[in-house]
Amino acid sequence: MPQKYRLLAEHYMKAIESGSLSEGERMPSLRELTALHRVSISTAVEACRVLEKHGYVEAKPRTGYFIRDPKRAITRFKEKREIEADGTEQRIDPADYVGVHERISVTLARGLQRPPKVDLAGAVCAPALYPGAALRDTLLRILRAKPSMYESAPQSDGVRKLKEAIARSSVTRGLHVDADAVLVTHGCSEALSLALRAVTGPGDIVAIESPSYFGILQIIESLGLKAIEIPTDPQTGMSVDALEFAINHMGSIQAVVCMPSVQNPLGSVMPDTLKIKMVELCDKHNMTIIEDDTYGAFLPSPANARPLKAWDKTGNVIYCNSLNKSLSPGLRVGWLIGGKWHKKIEMLMYAVSRHREEMAQLAAADFMAGGAFNRHMRRLNALLTQQRTQFVDAILRYFPAGTVVTRPEAGLLLWISLPDELSTDTLFENALREGIRICPGSIFSNTSKFSNCLRLSAGRPFDAQIDAALKTLARLTREIGGNGTLIEHHP
Amino acid sequence: MPQKYRLLAEHYMKAIESGSLSEGERMPSLRELTALHRVSISTAVEACRVLEKHGYVEAKPRTGYFIRDPKRAITRFKEKREIEADGTEQRIDPADYVGVHERISVTLARGLQRPPKVDLAGAVCAPALYPGAALRDTLLRILRAKPSMYESAPQSDGVRKLKEAIARSSVTRGLHVDADAVLVTHGCSEALSLALRAVTGPGDIVAIESPSYFGILQIIESLGLKAIEIPTDPQTGMSVDALEFAINHMGSIQAVVCMPSVQNPLGSVMPDTLKIKMVELCDKHNMTIIEDDTYGAFLPSPANARPLKAWDKTGNVIYCNSLNKSLSPGLRVGWLIGGKWHKKIEMLMYAVSRHREEMAQLAAADFMAGGAFNRHMRRLNALLTQQRTQFVDAILRYFPAGTVVTRPEAGLLLWISLPDELSTDTLFENALREGIRICPGSIFSNTSKFSNCLRLSAGRPFDAQIDAALKTLARLTREIGGNGTLIEHHP
Repeated sequence: MPQKYRLLAEHYMKAIESGSLSEGERMPSLRELTALHRVSISTAVEACRVLEKHGYVEAKPRTGYFIRDPKRAITRFKEKREIEADGTEQRIDPADYVGVHERISVTLARGLQRPPKVDLAGAVCAPALYPGAALRDTLLRILRAKPSMYESAPQSDGVRKLKEAIARSSVTRGLHVDADAVLVTHGCSEALSLALRAVTGPGDIVAIESPSYFGILQIIESLGLKAIEIPTDPQTGMSVDALEFAINHMGSIQAVVCMPSVQNPLGSVMPDTLKIKMVELCDKHNMTIIEDDTYGAFLPSPANARPLKAWDKTGNVIYCNSLNKSLSPGLRVGWLIGGKWHKKIEMLMYAVSRHREEMAQLAAADFMAGGAFNRHMRRLNALLTQQRTQFVDAILRYFPAGTVVTRPEAGLLLWISLPDELSTDTLFENALREGIRICPGSIFSNTSKFSNCLRLSAGRPFDAQIDAALKTLARLTREIGGNGTLIEHHP
Repeated sequence: MPQKYRLLAEHYMKAIESGSLSEGERMPSLRELTALHRVSISTAVEACRVLEKHGYVEAKPRTGYFIRDPKRAITRFKEKREIEADGTEQRIDPADYVGVHERISVTLARGLQRPPKVDLAGAVCAPALYPGAALRDTLLRILRAKPSMYESAPQSDGVRKLKEAIARSSVTRGLHVDADAVLVTHGCSEALSLALRAVTGPGDIVAIESPSYFGILQIIESLGLKAIEIPTDPQTGMSVDALEFAINHMGSIQAVVCMPSVQNPLGSVMPDTLKIKMVELCDKHNMTIIEDDTYGAFLPSPANARPLKAWDKTGNVIYCNSLNKSLSPGLRVGWLIGGKWHKKIEMLMYAVSRHREEMAQLAAADFMAGGAFNRHMRRLNALLTQQRTQFVDAILRYFPAGTVVTRPEAGLLLWISLPDELSTDTLFENALREGIRICPGSIFSNTSKFSNCLRLSAGRPFDAQIDAALKTLARLTREIGGNGTLIEHHP
């Protein structure tokens, strides 16, 4: 049986083709679609995505979808084939997360089977861009100054000095917190996992971005949770309207996990107006926000740099961050500010991993308190701005017409949509054979809607090897199209 | 309403006092008690404990309980008062773990409010007994040899060198594992938590030792699990008979968590015969064993030093260990061998905390592979043997008659039972006021049966200050008795 959203999309395709709905007309809103057709919000969202992807409608920010001229017969044909083939295809329920981890792991493991010549997959900067030497000097100094560090247990909730440095440095982002409100974790993944464990129980539903950092999908499955994917804009981030709609129509969403500042993979930054709206919305519905601010430090200017937590008046936002992407991929220092969930998270944390090693925390404190971290980020952000431009220019130069690439204002990640539904799973495999690693779009969602997308890291300085790799990727993309390989979906 | 086990104990007290059951006669077995009185195994076990504690019965290893002469009228009287006072007392269901963490945390936090002059509470050796200088030299060498360590992410499942060192060093304990079977964790707490998460779901029941390391009680509550406490002998560890009985009568026990080698707090070591029996029993009932071998390295001789995992033929034992107590309290390097749960645990691990820092792992690998760890443990164990003797001698010299103290063959922990049901919660508070920190027995169980017990660490070299502290504790113990303070139970 075809999936519901495809039937719904098919319905509107016919209506548009027959002229029942004509160009410029407003599509029924998501709310209206669910009421009219008795479908879930996710089905309505999916259907609109399909319509948009195939040129039947276009989205106008904060207004809705509008009918376009149905001129893309070829993609329409593909979508039809896709819909027809569906009878034998295993169905994916967007709220069913069993198997996501396996699927993502298999893909990631495939990419790790042998070291690639050019790795564009990892969301990480080139080693040379991190202050390795300075970090080492700091660590050596700490080891010499505190020789007895390893002879007794450190504080279980984090070293005081680090918590104070975090509290102080948060002020530059408009976030005023007490050092006591900070809990130090093993990176942001542990922070997110603890936050979700505190707020949800197995079977609960959380709202996430779409596309979403695949690690979140894995955490969600590992905790036995379900997720509803909320459309997320490459510029303005998670759609607060769609989130509101989902809240109103799904009732029991426990939490929303999001990256309002430099989203992974889109690089989107929510404007302050939307941030405020989102905090108020979730507050009103008593739905906890779990904010992942991992890439917040990559924002070069203070405009729109405030995290959601800065507007949190009720303790309803759990703020998670880490130095893993910004300062050092080898350091596992993350933290969270638990708001009204502080006590419960502290308990979970203590029960699970007790003490955290002191040395990395002291080094992190040193970098954050002394200004070295901010100086490093200014240098890094300047370099990344240059690298992103070079990457985007090369992509637009080499890739086939119709390729769309994001131009995020910060960070190291680029998100590319290939034309004609070309499968990036195929591209991923073919690129691996040429020694190039990319992240296929399929691992960023529990649906197949990003199967023509890929994430590239612009974290490496642009050089001849990168240039050649992007040229190769473009050639491989053309070859997929040339071979007539159509949309491939994960089972 | 009085608790069931007290009513049952009361029933047998009367039977013994009236002569219906006479000295030397065999008590009905636990199995018979549950059938006769339609009570749970835990109620039967509790009732026998109360009878034993008050001298009505005595336990003969592997045979059962036998009637003794009821001569202890005073304690009998106390127990009666206790039972009568019960009407207003909040009841504790041994399988209900909500609130355990809070109770334990509050106690631990009370002890941490100000640094004590003499800390006998922490299960940790004196800083000087750990190879701090050698560790620091190793860390400095690693930092110099691998300057780029912090510039890129380490392996997520642990550094290969450490896994190989763990696999090799396990052989000396009779455990033959492949390096690939080892997963590196943040200490043993994370290992235990991951193991429990893999095997159980909220509401499931796990069997634990009684008394049990309080961290396990906290993990159990943090995961929404319930626990059944299995009687545990100061010499031979968890009663396999009682475990079998619990399995047969409770049906749905998912896992058993235990420390067969140098249990915390008892210091008991299961004989090989019982270890084999336990592995076979759990295998037969498809009940996973989660083995905590944290103190296994403290066993001085190879006799009975094999972990349960060494007899595991089906992958049914999840083995957890750490270097936190043995090598360095400041190092969070633990590991687990997941057996048939390997894949699932790996997934949970990856979703929760991803990469682990490399440096501590490399240092640990260095110590384990080079023989430095074994040399350190030989020295440490010789010192601890001496310290334990000195502590026990002083305790027996100073404490009131009737005090019972364990004489474990290894490790650093001593378990003391005070006579006449003297409350160690009161002792804990009074000792804190004198600058001495101890662990009251109440935090080692979800029942009140260890409220007259305390755990002391013999990890500090015995000196005049320790001697004075033990003398003070003895005086405080006498004062509690002298004040007529009777049994105090946690609400």
